[in-house]
Amino acid sequence: MSSYFITGANRGLGLALTSHLAQLPASQVSTIFAGTRAPSASGDLQKLIDSSGGRVVHTSVAITDRASIDKAVLEVDARLEGRGLDVLINNAGAMHWVPEGGIAKMDNLREAFEINVQAVQNTTAAFIPLLRKGSLKKVVNISTTLGSIAQSHKYMWGSAPAYKITKAALNMLTVQYALEYEKEGFIIFAVSPGWLKTDLGSQSADLNVEVGARAVVDIILNSTSKDVGAFRNILVPGWEKTDGPNQYDGVNPPW
Amino acid sequence: MSSYFITGANRGLGLALTSHLAQLPASQVSTIFAGTRAPSASGDLQKLIDSSGGRVVHTSVAITDRASIDKAVLEVDARLEGRGLDVLINNAGAMHWVPEGGIAKMDNLREAFEINVQAVQNTTAAFIPLLRKGSLKKVVNISTTLGSIAQSHKYMWGSAPAYKITKAALNMLTVQYALEYEKEGFIIFAVSPGWLKTDLGSQSADLNVEVGARAVVDIILNSTSKDVGAFRNILVPGWEKTDGPNQYDGVNPPW
Repeated sequence: MSSYFITGANRGLGLALTSHLAQLPASQVSTIFAGTRAPSASGDLQKLIDSSGGRVVHTSVAITDRASIDKAVLEVDARLEGRGLDVLINNAGAMHWVPEGGIAKMDNLREAFEINVQAVQNTTAAFIPLLRKGSLKKVVNISTTLGSIAQSHKYMWGSAPAYKITKAALNMLTVQYALEYEKEGFIIFAVSPGWLKTDLGSQSADLNVEVGARAVVDIILNSTSKDVGAFRNILVPGWEKTDGPNQYDGVNPPW
Repeated sequence: MSSYFITGANRGLGLALTSHLAQLPASQVSTIFAGTRAPSASGDLQKLIDSSGGRVVHTSVAITDRASIDKAVLEVDARLEGRGLDVLINNAGAMHWVPEGGIAKMDNLREAFEINVQAVQNTTAAFIPLLRKGSLKKVVNISTTLGSIAQSHKYMWGSAPAYKITKAALNMLTVQYALEYEKEGFIIFAVSPGWLKTDLGSQSADLNVEVGARAVVDIILNSTSKDVGAFRNILVPGWEKTDGPNQYDGVNPPW
């Protein structure tokens, strides 16, 4: 009987996470708040809502705007009738490619920071009081192995420095929250969902989005206090070892 | 006969770096451009300039403003008469403490990002053409072990999450530049200068600023292609092992 709030739920991984959670029994997942920047649900999300028997609830929220988040928190609180929120998934993010001319021409770092770091700060800070009343107290930040500074050599092919820089910052934000709220029983960590076939990941990606979503949900459901401040990698059978740059072996990547 | 540009040279580590470089023989260090946000040099910097025989040159530069940096680049280029700049030290930075209420009340992340990350992007991007004409092609970013995500547990006592988050981002920015410009012979890396007795570090810090500045200059002078993309820690005799949280053993910290 756990409740979830997911940002960026209109498409891509956010939609797939919402869908996968909605397939779990109501005894396990009671309510999924599908947060979207757009004022209304996308066609795909609306279908999910219509077939969910009231378990998937659309919430309009602009996570770059603290007032909008505060309004969403009030809506969620009212709907949960004071029981508190159990799990917050900060999924919304943006990947900016570097223009011709390389990193010295990078003009999207500030925008990437607003979405990938500041918005997660806004959202997490606003939901802490509701999470404190919940029974699981989990905050899951969707990160990426492209944000691993130690693995930068391996990911040189991905010309998205603003994405990498802001995801490294997100990783530190995650750990700072994790260590501060550990004493209250919170479990806060980062997950790399794999390279997924979405608008963000392109159709050249490794995995169907449903595969990544399932693996992320598995990690969330099984997460315990040992995951506080961790950087989790998904486990996908058949992808434990690859000749390519990516492996999904469930082993925590280096920072 | 190398030329240096240092940001944040009016005080603290930037002033001490300028002073230490100015003490080296003119055959080794020809010109030190002391960049300051203030339109004029501080009293201490002016004394250095006056006693430097023309080797220390004040340059007014607001590193959060790309137009101001472009103007500084033109001044430096004119002064060097086309020889190019050898070393850029991105030293200017700011440490913001978290307010009462912890990280959920953090309201200075965006400001910290502008100074510790975006400004370094602005400065580095603007100076790349001049550095390309120089003979050393070194860019040194002043970071901190507080930006080590892997060592977050060790530095929990430092309640400066915006500083830690933006310095982790700076570390990734450094590595992205390092890998992109390595093929042109650039040597770009990050250095943690130690916890220094400055306005930023407070008088509770471990080391006098001159000690940190000397150790940083040693690292810069001796840096080679093996330091590309590295996270260097200073070496201070007597501080290789301590019972406290900090050690200055010259070993690269984890990211």
